[in-house]
Amino acid sequence: MFSFDTVLVWLDLAGVFFFAVSGSLLAARKQFDILGSILLASIVSLGGGVIRDIVINTGPPAAFTNPVYLLPPLLAAVLVYFLFSSVQRYTSLLTLFDAGGLALFCITGTLKALTAGMNPVAAILLGVTTAVGGGLLRDITANEVPELFDARDIYALPAFTGSALTALLWQLGLFSGLTAGLVAAVVFTFRVTAWRRGWHVPLAVRGWHRLGAASGGAAGGESRGRD
Amino acid sequence: MFSFDTVLVWLDLAGVFFFAVSGSLLAARKQFDILGSILLASIVSLGGGVIRDIVINTGPPAAFTNPVYLLPPLLAAVLVYFLFSSVQRYTSLLTLFDAGGLALFCITGTLKALTAGMNPVAAILLGVTTAVGGGLLRDITANEVPELFDARDIYALPAFTGSALTALLWQLGLFSGLTAGLVAAVVFTFRVTAWRRGWHVPLAVRGWHRLGAASGGAAGGESRGRD
Amino acid sequence: MFSFDTVLVWLDLAGVFFFAVSGSLLAARKQFDILGSILLASIVSLGGGVIRDIVINTGPPAAFTNPVYLLPPLLAAVLVYFLFSSVQRYTSLLTLFDAGGLALFCITGTLKALTAGMNPVAAILLGVTTAVGGGLLRDITANEVPELFDARDIYALPAFTGSALTALLWQLGLFSGLTAGLVAAVVFTFRVTAWRRGWHVPLAVRGWHRLGAASGGAAGGESRGRD
Repeated sequence: MFSFDTVLVWLDLAGVFFFAVSGSLLAARKQFDILGSILLASIVSLGGGVIRDIVINTGPPAAFTNPVYLLPPLLAAVLVYFLFSSVQRYTSLLTLFDAGGLALFCITGTLKALTAGMNPVAAILLGVTTAVGGGLLRDITANEVPELFDARDIYALPAFTGSALTALLWQLGLFSGLTAGLVAAVVFTFRVTAWRRGWHVPLAVRGWHRLGAASGGAAGGESRGRD
Repeated sequence: MFSFDTVLVWLDLAGVFFFAVSGSLLAARKQFDILGSILLASIVSLGGGVIRDIVINTGPPAAFTNPVYLLPPLLAAVLVYFLFSSVQRYTSLLTLFDAGGLALFCITGTLKALTAGMNPVAAILLGVTTAVGGGLLRDITANEVPELFDARDIYALPAFTGSALTALLWQLGLFSGLTAGLVAAVVFTFRVTAWRRGWHVPLAVRGWHRLGAASGGAAGGESRGRD
Repeated sequence: MFSFDTVLVWLDLAGVFFFAVSGSLLAARKQFDILGSILLASIVSLGGGVIRDIVINTGPPAAFTNPVYLLPPLLAAVLVYFLFSSVQRYTSLLTLFDAGGLALFCITGTLKALTAGMNPVAAILLGVTTAVGGGLLRDITANEVPELFDARDIYALPAFTGSALTALLWQLGLFSGLTAGLVAAVVFTFRVTAWRRGWHVPLAVRGWHRLGAASGGAAGGESRGRD
């Protein structure tokens, strides 16, 4: 029905849009202006892909050569501008859109690396980098401790799962628009459930307890409250 | 009088120097030492161009292959070291030098992309990235919310204006040392006037008021006071 | 005894491991979880080399194409997880491992640039960038003012010394596994002694005194206490 390349571009653009909305929502929460909203949306939605394309090293990044990539950040900033004042549950929304971007970018990042001839391990690594890179840039730029490092839920593991599944399906010759959709659904559900249920993995050091962590940890902060 | 390439290199070096001074001034304000001053000056003045050259992807960035690019950061750190103690109006100075760098980098960034064969939309985008990239790196490195996102004045719009004018003049065959100077003057005046007068655009969300913004916004902080 | 390339790869991997431990130690101090520990270890240990390889621009970075580079961050996170709870002098440890990474990366970074045909000045610059890049990324990612800018001791000068010595030995045809080890020992000793003794260089502005600096400086903070 769809050609392979068409599926890839649409998945990528959908991921760009989801991350762009998460950028504009953070801009709204930090009371940036509308230009700052467009810029933060651009950085978060295009940053991961730019890093990916620079690493693959086959010419200028798609975000710079294909102007269609500029539309999602503009659209996201406009949507947040008009709709956000009536939708106050911004942390939930930010996490949901961020999870959508994560689910799609781990697939497209892994796939782009595989089609460029990189080995599966490198492709998985680049898929995870693409997926978490945009959100990392968003939080660094907005001067926050990245969500990636928030010990209260799981962020990188869903991306790793999605990248590994994508590489596996590709190696088995089973990758298609349908299986891509299934992988995206698994990653999205994994990420959102981990966030809702507060699933977490052990801290970086054995024997520190979560309660004790509240007193001095940089990861704990009132700005991460779930509304 | 001057060849085209000579104009481009001198504009670029002047932009590097202006941004380098802004880096050294921020280093002084944050009480870094003289080595930190040289390093922050280097990051802010060379960072935007390194990103530009990596994206254009035609060999190692100019800052690494042409040692003359190392002189402006050294000069800036020395000047700030000897002159700053008697000139306390650092925020004004930082903004003026930053505006000078912005005015020149949006031109040279756009031009380098156009001469590398990129389309005008990509060239404008890369010009804006080059112009705002250095300042963004400066503020991220020094652990501040980037000035780019300060809702109290306008930062990215002048750079966009300069990049768009440069691309337009180039397409019309009217780009020269003279018109480049005019574009730089327009961008500089736009940026500085926006800062002096507190021109601003709407916030990222409709219906939030500027007064209300003071209570919880990360963009508002005592470190941004205008002296 | 060893071929030249073997020496280079082993030095590079040892540097990766040292920086990875420093990343996992910072993750422990900031109470990130074990995944955040692996990620921060990966960013700090592979980030400098990825920047180096992107600048040299001869294909995808080694960290993405050679899976062996993924082992040191995993190993570091596991070691810190099991050993750190009984070793509380984390700031000393972090500085020692960071100094080890610094000592090796300024050598391997300079050498990779020289063997890629860059001129000595560019090679020294890239060596310093490789050596300080990882630590800079670590501190930016963890939302701290980079140690690079801490006015209370010297960080970049040892890296510069090591890079310059490496380039000199290379030009003289005296670079070998033995002289590389000597350079690494000099850089490590210089860095650690500067830190222990509190050697410092003048501030970015003449006439500001260190005592006065305590009241308003961003570089001074309780998180940098030496235990």
